[in-house]
Amino acid sequence: MKPVNIGLLGLGTVGGGTATVLQENAAEISRRLGRDVNISAVCGKSAEKAAEIAPNAAFVQDPFELVRRDDVDVVVELFGGTGIAKDAVLKALENSKHVVTANKKLLAEYGNEIFPLAESKNVMVQFEAAVAGGIPIIKALREGLAANNIKSIAGIINGTSNFILSEMREKGSAFADVLKEAQALGYAEADPTFDIEGHDAGHKITIMSALAFGTPVDFSGCYLEGISKLDSRDIKYAEELGYRIKLLGITRKTGKGIELRVHPTLIPESRLLANVNGVMNAVRVNADMVGETLYYGAGAGALPTASAVVADIIDICRMIGADAANRVPHLAFQPKGVKAQTILPMDEITSSYYLRVQAKDELGTLGKIANLLAEQGVSIEALIQKGVINKTTAEIVILTHSTVEKNIKSAIAAIEQLDCVETPITMIRMESLHG
Amino acid sequence: MKPVNIGLLGLGTVGGGTATVLQENAAEISRRLGRDVNISAVCGKSAEKAAEIAPNAAFVQDPFELVRRDDVDVVVELFGGTGIAKDAVLKALENSKHVVTANKKLLAEYGNEIFPLAESKNVMVQFEAAVAGGIPIIKALREGLAANNIKSIAGIINGTSNFILSEMREKGSAFADVLKEAQALGYAEADPTFDIEGHDAGHKITIMSALAFGTPVDFSGCYLEGISKLDSRDIKYAEELGYRIKLLGITRKTGKGIELRVHPTLIPESRLLANVNGVMNAVRVNADMVGETLYYGAGAGALPTASAVVADIIDICRMIGADAANRVPHLAFQPKGVKAQTILPMDEITSSYYLRVQAKDELGTLGKIANLLAEQGVSIEALIQKGVINKTTAEIVILTHSTVEKNIKSAIAAIEQLDCVETPITMIRMESLHG
Repeated sequence: MKPVNIGLLGLGTVGGGTATVLQENAAEISRRLGRDVNISAVCGKSAEKAAEIAPNAAFVQDPFELVRRDDVDVVVELFGGTGIAKDAVLKALENSKHVVTANKKLLAEYGNEIFPLAESKNVMVQFEAAVAGGIPIIKALREGLAANNIKSIAGIINGTSNFILSEMREKGSAFADVLKEAQALGYAEADPTFDIEGHDAGHKITIMSALAFGTPVDFSGCYLEGISKLDSRDIKYAEELGYRIKLLGITRKTGKGIELRVHPTLIPESRLLANVNGVMNAVRVNADMVGETLYYGAGAGALPTASAVVADIIDICRMIGADAANRVPHLAFQPKGVKAQTILPMDEITSSYYLRVQAKDELGTLGKIANLLAEQGVSIEALIQKGVINKTTAEIVILTHSTVEKNIKSAIAAIEQLDCVETPITMIRMESLHG
Repeated sequence: MKPVNIGLLGLGTVGGGTATVLQENAAEISRRLGRDVNISAVCGKSAEKAAEIAPNAAFVQDPFELVRRDDVDVVVELFGGTGIAKDAVLKALENSKHVVTANKKLLAEYGNEIFPLAESKNVMVQFEAAVAGGIPIIKALREGLAANNIKSIAGIINGTSNFILSEMREKGSAFADVLKEAQALGYAEADPTFDIEGHDAGHKITIMSALAFGTPVDFSGCYLEGISKLDSRDIKYAEELGYRIKLLGITRKTGKGIELRVHPTLIPESRLLANVNGVMNAVRVNADMVGETLYYGAGAGALPTASAVVADIIDICRMIGADAANRVPHLAFQPKGVKAQTILPMDEITSSYYLRVQAKDELGTLGKIANLLAEQGVSIEALIQKGVINKTTAEIVILTHSTVEKNIKSAIAAIEQLDCVETPITMIRMESLHG
């Protein structure tokens, strides 16, 4: 069979990695696929970079020219963002080109526009690299677990945040210090907001939620809470109690609707997710038939991400010429089976909680706090005096059993009204990762 | 589209689980696949069991009748073993039926007969459930990691053995006692040989090795060493040194050939694989572009295994009507790209080693042992006197750096010649899981 021609949009880290994988593993890929994969055209800012990355490809300055070229069968979008990337992807689809993209933001925010267009044009959009880098989690969700009703997903899906949290724990350092270290190592951007405030993880869990539950993507419904306000004391206390704090993307199907959220989370140290350290990613899926499965690997980096991009290219190459009915649907479910479901506001989610309260070390304080929790129906798993701040003030850590979030918020508001309590109270959600 | 008709061979645990998954998740499966999946015929010993499992299916006593029925599109073989299962699968393929099987023994021993027959008849054989139960590792190896040259695989792929080793470590119990407990809990068969002596893990790693490196399956080349001779002292000493002992299936591509082996292995406790406990399975894959990925989940059980069986059914249903060129090849590589490679004899593999030596506690003993190791070019990472057996005999634990196995064997033979040393010396292989 004749080679499949790839048009590459973007000559940055992942673009370079994709060219490297296609070139260095050309023989292995051809041995698997039964045909060659050829980069026929590339688009980026620098002709020199283009010549270095893909010397035999045409260099095209205009992305809209690339996506309509006859010598391009598959457009690989690695610009990132939702500006030119979005326009180029839409134009590629309009020109009936298959698309591979690593762009989580694009799909989480505009997937509901992109996937139907691809279906109407009878072409495929593949996006394994958009979630958890080199880990084949999209394939697991869309295909490997297809026999299941998926119940929940919890993932460490932002390497920058996980690196920072791992270092804070190991070294007892403050957030700001570790962020500087991460920036020096190239693990964090100069403006790290996107990673540390949960946006990136939010895009990824939004995509996985849609795939798991058969809904449209709805990033606007995703709750985002980052790690920048985490106090290293909470990491230490959590560890003393047998927990680790991880930034998790969580989605869960409940009788009332879907939970979709990103926030720091205490998880028991014995769980595999708790032992995923540094920049590594892992995704835990709980499904009705298979139970718990977990997928671990590099969530970023040129070659791991390119591994996923090229796996998508190979998938598309195999399916060129097949009918649409033979394909795995974009959002795992047939388009007519994709149905919007309520995304629960945070007040309605169910979780257990870690609270840290600074209070006057006087008779009756613990009792008052316990009573206010009980009034909101929040039952206490543990209530421990952890540290003494000064002669008159102590630090109390409370672990609650599972409750609805509005109850804990009401309880916190009431506790903060106590004269003996300093504000604000620190609240971090907990997950047992058993369900 | 009209429903796809399934013929089920075997009404045992996994057969029942498969019927359960297809029935309970019928709506979800249809929502994904765009058509219904129907069990049209079943074959087993008991008509009553058949009526209970699949009340609307025809009950067929003769498997050879089932595999030629016009109302069967896909044959699901869950008999197990290589007797009637083999004949029925071959006959199904001859009748141009697609086949799903969970039968690791059949594929590891007769895959080289089965896959070419399927190709000549233009039908698919899918076997996700044959390795690591519900974990979609076959899909990861064949598709998710298709951009990579796979370098090595190491897996905990026998739940019975992992349960026994986990219990031995946690409770300090002897092998025989934990085996009895496992049998009482239903985690071990009355005759546990197949699980505890490494045969089951050997079948699975043989299949994964072929998929990783593009070779025919060659179970005869797989080295098997089980856990029945493990002393709980070695588990304790390993733990004191920061290691866990796991029964691993290992395959690795080297410049000299392929390593293919199952044996108890010391691994550093900080590695995720070391923290996979009880009956759970996990497979670590090291590949050139993506680096390390790991896949974790239930390796056995009715519903987890059925999850994989039904995922295979869904894959086949999608691809009915597509060309052979659109399919993923059975062994991950195009048939003409599958090439036999040398499987290294154990003397030629490379590993580091844990040795436990009982020796007279006298001046010069350690020096003599160290010299004999050095003579074989084996360098020592640690040499520790662990326990005192009695007034005159001590127990010495040695961890070596990486060496070729014939060297360590020669060194052991020489050390066993020393008057001050009791025989036999205990040798357990180690893996850093870094490469």
